[in-house]
Amino acid sequence: MKQLNIGLFGFGNVGHGLYDVLKRIDSKSVTIRHICVRDINKERGVDAKFTSNPDDIFNDRDINLIVEVIDDAEAAYEIVKRALKMRIPVVSGNKKMLGHHLPELIDLQEQYNTALLYDASACGSIPVIRNLEEYYDNDLLTSVKGILNGSSNFILSKIFNEKMGYKEALKLAQDLGFAESNPTLDIDGWDSLYKLIIVTIHAFGVYVAPEEILTYGISTMNDSDIRFAHEKERRIKLVAHVEKVDDSKLIMCVLPQLISRNKYIYSVEDEFNGVVIKGLFYDKQFMFGRGAGGHPTGSAVLSDITACGYNYRYEYKKRNDSVLPCYSTDHAFRIYFRYKTAEERNLLKFENIREQYTSEEFSYIIGDVSIANLKAHQEELRTPNCFVAAYPLD
Amino acid sequence: MKQLNIGLFGFGNVGHGLYDVLKRIDSKSVTIRHICVRDINKERGVDAKFTSNPDDIFNDRDINLIVEVIDDAEAAYEIVKRALKMRIPVVSGNKKMLGHHLPELIDLQEQYNTALLYDASACGSIPVIRNLEEYYDNDLLTSVKGILNGSSNFILSKIFNEKMGYKEALKLAQDLGFAESNPTLDIDGWDSLYKLIIVTIHAFGVYVAPEEILTYGISTMNDSDIRFAHEKERRIKLVAHVEKVDDSKLIMCVLPQLISRNKYIYSVEDEFNGVVIKGLFYDKQFMFGRGAGGHPTGSAVLSDITACGYNYRYEYKKRNDSVLPCYSTDHAFRIYFRYKTAEERNLLKFENIREQYTSEEFSYIIGDVSIANLKAHQEELRTPNCFVAAYPLD
Repeated sequence: MKQLNIGLFGFGNVGHGLYDVLKRIDSKSVTIRHICVRDINKERGVDAKFTSNPDDIFNDRDINLIVEVIDDAEAAYEIVKRALKMRIPVVSGNKKMLGHHLPELIDLQEQYNTALLYDASACGSIPVIRNLEEYYDNDLLTSVKGILNGSSNFILSKIFNEKMGYKEALKLAQDLGFAESNPTLDIDGWDSLYKLIIVTIHAFGVYVAPEEILTYGISTMNDSDIRFAHEKERRIKLVAHVEKVDDSKLIMCVLPQLISRNKYIYSVEDEFNGVVIKGLFYDKQFMFGRGAGGHPTGSAVLSDITACGYNYRYEYKKRNDSVLPCYSTDHAFRIYFRYKTAEERNLLKFENIREQYTSEEFSYIIGDVSIANLKAHQEELRTPNCFVAAYPLD
Repeated sequence: MKQLNIGLFGFGNVGHGLYDVLKRIDSKSVTIRHICVRDINKERGVDAKFTSNPDDIFNDRDINLIVEVIDDAEAAYEIVKRALKMRIPVVSGNKKMLGHHLPELIDLQEQYNTALLYDASACGSIPVIRNLEEYYDNDLLTSVKGILNGSSNFILSKIFNEKMGYKEALKLAQDLGFAESNPTLDIDGWDSLYKLIIVTIHAFGVYVAPEEILTYGISTMNDSDIRFAHEKERRIKLVAHVEKVDDSKLIMCVLPQLISRNKYIYSVEDEFNGVVIKGLFYDKQFMFGRGAGGHPTGSAVLSDITACGYNYRYEYKKRNDSVLPCYSTDHAFRIYFRYKTAEERNLLKFENIREQYTSEEFSYIIGDVSIANLKAHQEELRTPNCFVAAYPLD
């Protein structure tokens, strides 16, 4: 493995986590030379060279790896582009940036023959991307489905199992360092969405832009929904899902699901992530681990760093398949839909209705609705009056 | 990916599974040219070129990949050696052969600059080796523990949950194609042992020969043990385990364990395998999937084949670490020990005794015993009078 001199951008939870991990393993071959942060005056409690000027990193000819773990997606995008153009390999943890700019960043990697690695960006310590890229690299793969956001899952666990209030659970997640600085990223499904986009490009070779994908979170879930789930002996989980429903059609969405006890992800609790990879012949595989937190994510960043030391690059093999499946929203799910007004009720066109209940306090329908229909009204449905969750057959 | 023309040795469960998988995906870049089997006259029901002469494969200059999925470890060893020496890459599924000959085969790979891949040999469809090699390739890893044998786990599930008799469960496992042709390989822990040896060389860079490792299975487990487990609300699982107990000491064993409900592997049932990878900072990761059966293993073989198409090789990175941990049996476990006679009782030296029970029908002790002590009496303990299982604290 070659000697790596790192220029690190960002020293929040993940950056500090990486610092701790490197210190603990006392690696001779990996050193952090400079750390670029926004606020140079903040007390960090570590013995390292801080700067607020990116040029201190980019102009240091000894730095041969950039690690970018900052919060700001636009700034991350500029750092990654600049590094690739200078032919300095980059490790990034910024899923929002990747979700928006992956096609361009793939082209840049090729054009400048330089690696961009980001296994740490999806599922924290679970090596999902690397496995999709290297192991599930043939036509057998049919779907990837999972809990990709540790923060919202932590909150759901606390609300569901410990009857904690939403605000209290969110505060706890933030105190423990699981939540993004902007919690709607986690709670409304955006963080899961970006990870899903990254996963999909490695799983099926297809890039779909964030704005095209149904994304609906748990921010409008209320006590009626929780009671309903308990009655049905299910748990509500926020699930990201990509599936080749036939050889030519790919569906994607981020949507809460009412999960029954016999499913693997039913038992994924707290800040953990769990991913179910399904394929012809091998059926299902389940990967489970810590999806959030500075140290688990820091150790995932370290795996990317080591991979850079061995000159590893993603090859995006699936993108070169002669026939790629097409993204489509023309596919129906069975959903649970809570609503209040007739107007809300009429937003969704049910292909058939399996169950319905109406009262002054609480009305719901269970039935089949197309992804296109849900997507068209995604924002209108994000109101306290409504909640939508997939309700799969057992 | 380069065009692969395969010479296949063996057309049992896994060979046939691979054939089905390749047929289904209709791959243009992978073709089976010849299949070498022992009995050329057996009706196989497939349209392929069979031979019983290995030279038909080795002399075919168009064959650029050998896939070996035969039962006979010695014959497999000869095939793999011959292929490597001819600089033809090989994919193998033979864990017994690998467990015995890995150091030599690693040297041959280097000497002839030719790949030998065997992810399919451990844990069927779960990509454990590839992940240990590529992702958990730094010093954070502390232990790998799991259910690595689908057949014995299937039998344990049937006995435990469905109160099936041992023979009936074994027969069912064989009918379903999960069991080795010689069932003691599964039941007495040898199959798990070979897999553990393979896993360990990729996890910690250390090779330990099969005869040096405590290996004890479930063949002497009886109704008293099952009742005892139920009373303690635990399940008996056959667990392979390697752990760096400190920076310099590595322990390994295959031993039944009384597993409590809060452990991941408690819920691994039937022919499934489950592996828990533990490390500093990322805590635990759990990987779960089908560990046996022709199609899941066939699809794992396909992943190795595709990797060969991309010129992938294991690098055995950990073997190059400056300081490798030393294998040791000087480490104590808490165990449950059922025995009949005083002579049997005195085989084991308990460092302390936590619980004991004696009656005419059933006597047991729970206490701490060193691996060295267990290993010394491994064969004497393999009698219907005795049963040993680890009994970890919760």
